[in-house]
Amino acid sequence: MILIIFLVFSLFSFSHASVLDFCVADLAGPIGPAGYSCKKPSKVTADDFAYSGLAIAGNTSNIIKAAVTPAFDAQFPGVNGLGISAARLDLARGGVIPLHTHPGASELLVVIQGSILAGFISSDNSVYIKKLNKGDVMVFPQGLLHFQINAGGSSALAIVSFSSSNPGLQILDFALFKSNFPTPLIVETTFLDAALVKKLKGVLGGSG
Amino acid sequence: MILIIFLVFSLFSFSHASVLDFCVADLAGPIGPAGYSCKKPSKVTADDFAYSGLAIAGNTSNIIKAAVTPAFDAQFPGVNGLGISAARLDLARGGVIPLHTHPGASELLVVIQGSILAGFISSDNSVYIKKLNKGDVMVFPQGLLHFQINAGGSSALAIVSFSSSNPGLQILDFALFKSNFPTPLIVETTFLDAALVKKLKGVLGGSG
Amino acid sequence: MILIIFLVFSLFSFSHASVLDFCVADLAGPIGPAGYSCKKPSKVTADDFAYSGLAIAGNTSNIIKAAVTPAFDAQFPGVNGLGISAARLDLARGGVIPLHTHPGASELLVVIQGSILAGFISSDNSVYIKKLNKGDVMVFPQGLLHFQINAGGSSALAIVSFSSSNPGLQILDFALFKSNFPTPLIVETTFLDAALVKKLKGVLGGSG
Amino acid sequence: MILIIFLVFSLFSFSHASVLDFCVADLAGPIGPAGYSCKKPSKVTADDFAYSGLAIAGNTSNIIKAAVTPAFDAQFPGVNGLGISAARLDLARGGVIPLHTHPGASELLVVIQGSILAGFISSDNSVYIKKLNKGDVMVFPQGLLHFQINAGGSSALAIVSFSSSNPGLQILDFALFKSNFPTPLIVETTFLDAALVKKLKGVLGGSG
Amino acid sequence: MILIIFLVFSLFSFSHASVLDFCVADLAGPIGPAGYSCKKPSKVTADDFAYSGLAIAGNTSNIIKAAVTPAFDAQFPGVNGLGISAARLDLARGGVIPLHTHPGASELLVVIQGSILAGFISSDNSVYIKKLNKGDVMVFPQGLLHFQINAGGSSALAIVSFSSSNPGLQILDFALFKSNFPTPLIVETTFLDAALVKKLKGVLGGSG
Amino acid sequence: MILIIFLVFSLFSFSHASVLDFCVADLAGPIGPAGYSCKKPSKVTADDFAYSGLAIAGNTSNIIKAAVTPAFDAQFPGVNGLGISAARLDLARGGVIPLHTHPGASELLVVIQGSILAGFISSDNSVYIKKLNKGDVMVFPQGLLHFQINAGGSSALAIVSFSSSNPGLQILDFALFKSNFPTPLIVETTFLDAALVKKLKGVLGGSG
Repeated sequence: MILIIFLVFSLFSFSHASVLDFCVADLAGPIGPAGYSCKKPSKVTADDFAYSGLAIAGNTSNIIKAAVTPAFDAQFPGVNGLGISAARLDLARGGVIPLHTHPGASELLVVIQGSILAGFISSDNSVYIKKLNKGDVMVFPQGLLHFQINAGGSSALAIVSFSSSNPGLQILDFALFKSNFPTPLIVETTFLDAALVKKLKGVLGGSG
Repeated sequence: MILIIFLVFSLFSFSHASVLDFCVADLAGPIGPAGYSCKKPSKVTADDFAYSGLAIAGNTSNIIKAAVTPAFDAQFPGVNGLGISAARLDLARGGVIPLHTHPGASELLVVIQGSILAGFISSDNSVYIKKLNKGDVMVFPQGLLHFQINAGGSSALAIVSFSSSNPGLQILDFALFKSNFPTPLIVETTFLDAALVKKLKGVLGGSG
Repeated sequence: MILIIFLVFSLFSFSHASVLDFCVADLAGPIGPAGYSCKKPSKVTADDFAYSGLAIAGNTSNIIKAAVTPAFDAQFPGVNGLGISAARLDLARGGVIPLHTHPGASELLVVIQGSILAGFISSDNSVYIKKLNKGDVMVFPQGLLHFQINAGGSSALAIVSFSSSNPGLQILDFALFKSNFPTPLIVETTFLDAALVKKLKGVLGGSG
Repeated sequence: MILIIFLVFSLFSFSHASVLDFCVADLAGPIGPAGYSCKKPSKVTADDFAYSGLAIAGNTSNIIKAAVTPAFDAQFPGVNGLGISAARLDLARGGVIPLHTHPGASELLVVIQGSILAGFISSDNSVYIKKLNKGDVMVFPQGLLHFQINAGGSSALAIVSFSSSNPGLQILDFALFKSNFPTPLIVETTFLDAALVKKLKGVLGGSG
Repeated sequence: MILIIFLVFSLFSFSHASVLDFCVADLAGPIGPAGYSCKKPSKVTADDFAYSGLAIAGNTSNIIKAAVTPAFDAQFPGVNGLGISAARLDLARGGVIPLHTHPGASELLVVIQGSILAGFISSDNSVYIKKLNKGDVMVFPQGLLHFQINAGGSSALAIVSFSSSNPGLQILDFALFKSNFPTPLIVETTFLDAALVKKLKGVLGGSG
Repeated sequence: MILIIFLVFSLFSFSHASVLDFCVADLAGPIGPAGYSCKKPSKVTADDFAYSGLAIAGNTSNIIKAAVTPAFDAQFPGVNGLGISAARLDLARGGVIPLHTHPGASELLVVIQGSILAGFISSDNSVYIKKLNKGDVMVFPQGLLHFQINAGGSSALAIVSFSSSNPGLQILDFALFKSNFPTPLIVETTFLDAALVKKLKGVLGGSG
């Protein structure tokens, strides 16, 4: 037999405590170094903690035959302040996620479909490359250049997660050739020649 | 034309810098509050950053018809110190991951196959529940009780990641009924009755 | 003899620096993942750093014969952002603080009066229990289930502190039976039976 | 009726996960920036999480008529890595805890007995002082000079906790006059005169 | 030959991601425990990341013959949230930066010109002093009392940096004698005598 | 008159507390995610906190006409665990520090001599470039590609500091062309052509 007669006790003040169990992003509020402002707890619903944007394959009808679909705090406000976020990688046959870094996070990749050749380069210029099959996991330490390439004969899919709700993404080719980084400075700081830089800027839409 | 003649310059000392690009766990070394000791960088290979333990479905031939297969630092030494880890959840038809917490991490779940009903409870006893389909994502804030239930007619699979390389896992039923937590204390601190506690201990293997 | 003639020197700009010596919570301002907004420094007084809410015993005229009185950031704005907070535990004779967790903090308890039996359960279902007398200290690692029971013949008092200004508090019985967590889901995720769950919900005020 | 037949399922690997639920200090092992090495989990018992060193009043038969008894990681290994620690302050009638700082932690004080006048000074030279009675709480933000004085007619007792397992303690008079800080340098950097410094060094045991 | 035809792919959503690459302080916005609110990214320019306030020597025509010119977040909004800031120290011949602490940061000093005698005192009253020449570096661990003295025959210049964008600065003499810290309390908490305290307050502008 | 008669009081246990005032690296001990093991406090001297390796100009007799001389934890053990480190940049006339990132730290640069053109690229491909003169400061947010170029007619010198004791350094050209990153993979992940990659590898010493 179970007998419980509970009286209300002095815990009502804890209702405030839930505020920082989580901090669903109010994308319209002020932003600080730790992330977005929190949505009013009374307006938070279960929907804030779920996101369906990764359910749909990204459009790989492009020259890299690949797509990155993020679920960072800006897309998925529920992760704000929780130190985690995700993205899906779609790689059509021959698809490539070009060399890139996440300035503020480590990345963990799980192959959901197909085969992926992935790798990263460390500060001492060592290269760590693995061929990954379905179900395999790989981790890319924070801030290092890394890439993913479809290594199979059909499309590949990976889910990646990050150790930050806002990992950032700096794609090397875009930083150089899709920006207005002046060509002479690119030449000086990369040792690529100007003609090449200009050609790549033409392709990717950079200026300067 | 590209002309580059590089002389060796004073950067050799940076070869040491790679030490903390990553810290692959030396499971045999001393452990500290921040994680395992680092494997000697010269012995680290690409294999240390990959893990195939999540490629195989967990055995769901059990009463919860479910299995959790972790890729934490103890299983996957490459994530040590990187603030991220993962696990796979296999839920056969009718499968359930019982109420549990991760004491040291938030969790992000992606449904890979099937449908999952998932939810968590906050400090102010609000309940946030969502039915998730293939590709849907849900986040569970750090330290809160949460669960996952197969909500479809066939088996379900989810990949979860954590904001820590060692998130911990405290399963409520196991903490109470698979431990040697003395029955009288369980009764006093949960208001369940002794007969029930003893029965559940019998089932789950607890003592006391 | 001491001779000092100080001229004003270029340190006036440091008057701004005090802003983040502390960040007394402005409970009406926006909240972010790191805590409440800071009250304007010019309006901060010594009173903001003191709190008398723990001076009064909580009301233990309830079935648990116990009370928790918090001094978290919501009650004591001076601790906002400082990584510390406190509470007082009053346990009348026979009083019990039921099993609970603090999702975001470790806890340190000091017995001020009486005797307390306290314990916690770790991720591997080990149970750590100690009988504490006046002046004894116990620490409960972050996020783990723990409890406190009056172990003496008269009332007991403890002061607890936390490694966060907003540790949160999830009381197991309240999460299950004082919430609107649907009974069928509780049954599925805890293996308690429906009749029991409904009875406990009736006692504690839960619904669903 | 409750029916549960649990089969062993694939969670044995989680037994490793408890390692970082906590990290009880192995005082003989290597120390790192995050704290002491962890004691082997299999050797950890409930005793590691409790400490009775604060149960005994410190000896106040000294000129400050006060004593500080710490429960930091070096005394209380259970707090290692948990971001919290404690101390007791005994102040006989007329007792004073002289101006000091904790370089690595904020402090929260609870008056257990008697009355205490406490205060701190901020970076912009503002002074925040409060008279605290039994049960009152005060917080001292990290790294700032602060003090506690017995403000009543009988002995006072306070329990303080810190937002670090190793807060450090720098007592101003000891740093200056109980050290071998050369007198001419003290004079130059504090504008006190040499005769005074030498006298104080004589009293407190400093040299140089 | 290089052939690249890039199609626009699904990365436009990443334009939001830049928000937390950096968080240039909006000095007029709300402040939180982690720092100032972020300036709108669209209004951020290269100028926000540069600061010329350290290019001009501080005025050393004062009794300490020295000046500290800060580039903290309040002066240099670009460092907000980045965990780093700087200052310049000008020491005329005979100049001294009196004993002080930074409550929230470690400091690294580089001598740019002249010679400097610098030192700090640890929690156990050990004193670490070094004579530094041009180009030498010294580090001062967080929160500890330290000083810098011109040790050469001409003016000296140092650049210091901090492990926080808001390190704070508590100058011992100012905290005691330029504040309204009541003289009787200073006497009680430092063992200096009242006459001395009053004299120093007269010089430095303190009251009480 | 000053009268102080201090008796020894119960603070001897604090001598242990100095351990984590600092953690001078024991380069021979185990390393963990938070840094090197600490040198035994009794063996630490003032010399451990100073470093003269930045006093000497780096050798710029190379094609980039520049040199980076680090004072990271591996070179300057005193900064271990303190969240700060430094380096000197020497740029002869025409010297360039090529595009690079620091995976784990923000950087703050102070121009000591000459003029420097510096810039970085953010995640959304915006470019922030400034010409800096003597005394000017610039900050480079964590993990983003950045560069420094001598912008004057004579040699330039800068001191840089980092928000980590081990910021890492990944030089883009070295990662690509001084490593054994296989040429076909470079081509696939950067869209540079194979002939160019091979030529650059020849110059910089890469293989594969």
